[in-house]
Amino acid sequence: MALIVQKYGGTSVGSIERIRSVARRVIESHLQGHQMVVVLSAMAGQTDGLIRLAREMTEDPDPRELDVLMATGEQISVALFAMAVKSMGYDACSLLGFQVGIYTDDLYGKARIQQIKKERILKELEKNRIVTVAGFQGLDDHGDITTLGRGGSDTTAVALAAAMKADVCEIYTDVDGVYTTDPHVCPKARKLNLISYDEMLEMASLGAKVLEIRSVEFAKKYNVPIHVRSTFSNERGTMVVEETRDMEKVLVSGVAFNKNEARVTIRKVPDRPGIAFRIFEPVFESGIVVDMILQNTSEDGLTDLTFTVPKADFYKTMKLVSDTAQKIGAEKVLGDENIAKVSIIGVGMRTHAGVASRMFEILAKENINIMMISTSEIKISCVIEEKYTELAVRVLHEAFGLDVEPQKS
Amino acid sequence: MALIVQKYGGTSVGSIERIRSVARRVIESHLQGHQMVVVLSAMAGQTDGLIRLAREMTEDPDPRELDVLMATGEQISVALFAMAVKSMGYDACSLLGFQVGIYTDDLYGKARIQQIKKERILKELEKNRIVTVAGFQGLDDHGDITTLGRGGSDTTAVALAAAMKADVCEIYTDVDGVYTTDPHVCPKARKLNLISYDEMLEMASLGAKVLEIRSVEFAKKYNVPIHVRSTFSNERGTMVVEETRDMEKVLVSGVAFNKNEARVTIRKVPDRPGIAFRIFEPVFESGIVVDMILQNTSEDGLTDLTFTVPKADFYKTMKLVSDTAQKIGAEKVLGDENIAKVSIIGVGMRTHAGVASRMFEILAKENINIMMISTSEIKISCVIEEKYTELAVRVLHEAFGLDVEPQKS
Repeated sequence: MALIVQKYGGTSVGSIERIRSVARRVIESHLQGHQMVVVLSAMAGQTDGLIRLAREMTEDPDPRELDVLMATGEQISVALFAMAVKSMGYDACSLLGFQVGIYTDDLYGKARIQQIKKERILKELEKNRIVTVAGFQGLDDHGDITTLGRGGSDTTAVALAAAMKADVCEIYTDVDGVYTTDPHVCPKARKLNLISYDEMLEMASLGAKVLEIRSVEFAKKYNVPIHVRSTFSNERGTMVVEETRDMEKVLVSGVAFNKNEARVTIRKVPDRPGIAFRIFEPVFESGIVVDMILQNTSEDGLTDLTFTVPKADFYKTMKLVSDTAQKIGAEKVLGDENIAKVSIIGVGMRTHAGVASRMFEILAKENINIMMISTSEIKISCVIEEKYTELAVRVLHEAFGLDVEPQKS
Repeated sequence: MALIVQKYGGTSVGSIERIRSVARRVIESHLQGHQMVVVLSAMAGQTDGLIRLAREMTEDPDPRELDVLMATGEQISVALFAMAVKSMGYDACSLLGFQVGIYTDDLYGKARIQQIKKERILKELEKNRIVTVAGFQGLDDHGDITTLGRGGSDTTAVALAAAMKADVCEIYTDVDGVYTTDPHVCPKARKLNLISYDEMLEMASLGAKVLEIRSVEFAKKYNVPIHVRSTFSNERGTMVVEETRDMEKVLVSGVAFNKNEARVTIRKVPDRPGIAFRIFEPVFESGIVVDMILQNTSEDGLTDLTFTVPKADFYKTMKLVSDTAQKIGAEKVLGDENIAKVSIIGVGMRTHAGVASRMFEILAKENINIMMISTSEIKISCVIEEKYTELAVRVLHEAFGLDVEPQKS
């Protein structure tokens, strides 16, 4: 008998019929003797509907009250799910954030879980009930409702699994696992059986939308095995687990890409202390998230500074930076929206040298120019012209042997 | 400075624009220096939408989970209302049943309030905030969400007013007060300035739909003055208060009627002990609410038994009673759906004799036959043919002087 935490996203509970089918699936596991804790998101469309309602009321809804409003979405899902299970003849019980005791800080809209009580859930499980918990919501120290931000139900599930010391946390989604790269771009993309937390974190932050990044951090911290799998099949998905020696044998686990950034270059910046601060301060102040930053070595006391920002903030950034450039006497500001970031990820890089140069060689062979490079212990990212994205992904995927299933050692 | 509890129904908060206009109204009172506690119902249509969702899931939704589902309606209203107030530059705070501490028994769907904590509300009021409380919902001893049943927000408001020792509980609705009778039936119906709790209870149970009956019982028990008034005007409405000596000077305060009942008669029932039990047991067992019961004096050991039930239960009742009649050897069962109950209500009846005979005389003059009579200390009800309802209401209204404003003594 195992204790299993499952999480179903908005699409999986998007209609009465789909909630029923999730109920049947959960009952099946329950009948195999497992204790089931089921975390649900709001029904697809519900969250957007609630946001629309709030925006209709005021352009800038009060964050505390927005959380009170948003929390109703998951409340509806768990009530309907518990009804479904009971109508099928099994016992179930829905619990909201305040009933479980999911305590968070008071950062409305992006609260972080601080503590989870397990007494109430254990009590219900002991009565042989299927327990369903509203995802995405918690309670702060004042007794007020908070929400964890988009994708927060993943975090709820993983945090619950950690608190309850569950055997596994299954994240059900509309894809059947984590792929070596986007199958829409590279038809030879393969579903991974295993991936390490660190690799998953890099994959997530680089644009793969399977798991919410905070939930992976949580899983890593408390060593919760995550099983990412499809609601619509019974296939085994991808296990996200602690790094093993076996994983290191594979050089590259996946290829990620991101077309949502733009590049800004400031030419001939007088290179003196504090200059980077003067340039970036107004950008940070505006809440713009800068990703890569690159500064060339200085020549004749002048340097070039290049960085990337989300495409949505491109024009605002150009305006801010052009103002600063003028004040500090830089030559000019160049911008480019037609870029993409292509990355290879793999814990194997930790122990294998020369992966970066392989990557540059592969791209060079296709005449793809590299504009920026950024590396970490387990990933290498290159900024290239956007039009080469798909080509770059495909050649990297093939060259690093991702097209074929790795042989068992 | 007064402490005012206001309650707005579903129509009053039926759209974003209407919630805004309620917010403006509340802010106005707040600016006059009053402490404001605002109880809201779900937006019109929301409750029915949620019930539809539950019934789509299963014919017989689990009561506990139905309450979890239903409670989201009021949660949405209070969040939007608090947003509206804040967007207008004033401070507000929404509180749900569990946050206030509205404790009830665990009769899901029709829970009764047992205790209300006032600490959290007081804390928010001290911060000069407008406090809005989700109506209709509470929390039981297990920490589970309960709802108070239809019209439960009235009860929430009155119970809060009682707990907080509020100066007044204002119930905002789509009519501007309590009338001497239905203005659609009798154009000369007058709005009452004052009515006693007992009269209001009789009016409510006899079909006037202004106030939920339990809220009036609550108000009577804790002596909370209720002001029933319109959301859509600034007119003074009707005060529901403790009986005063002045009220006794008025013989009849109102005329009520009810067309939703049907009559069942069992002819020539062998009159022996336990016979009423045998007849009514299957009816009660089926959850059918019997209103008036009338048994004639026995003649030759045979008696006639007549009673009324809701029209919706008429056929079911006829079937049940016919079965029993056969078993006990009664002659036959007669049914009549075309009846109405017309009642006159007034605390003045306590001290004035002869009101009943006046009523019979007035109806007789119009050749309206009385089929059944039932009386209490402060009301007299007659069952008549349905087609005479409007006529009966109008002649009683005029004959008892309700057409004209009573003179101040």
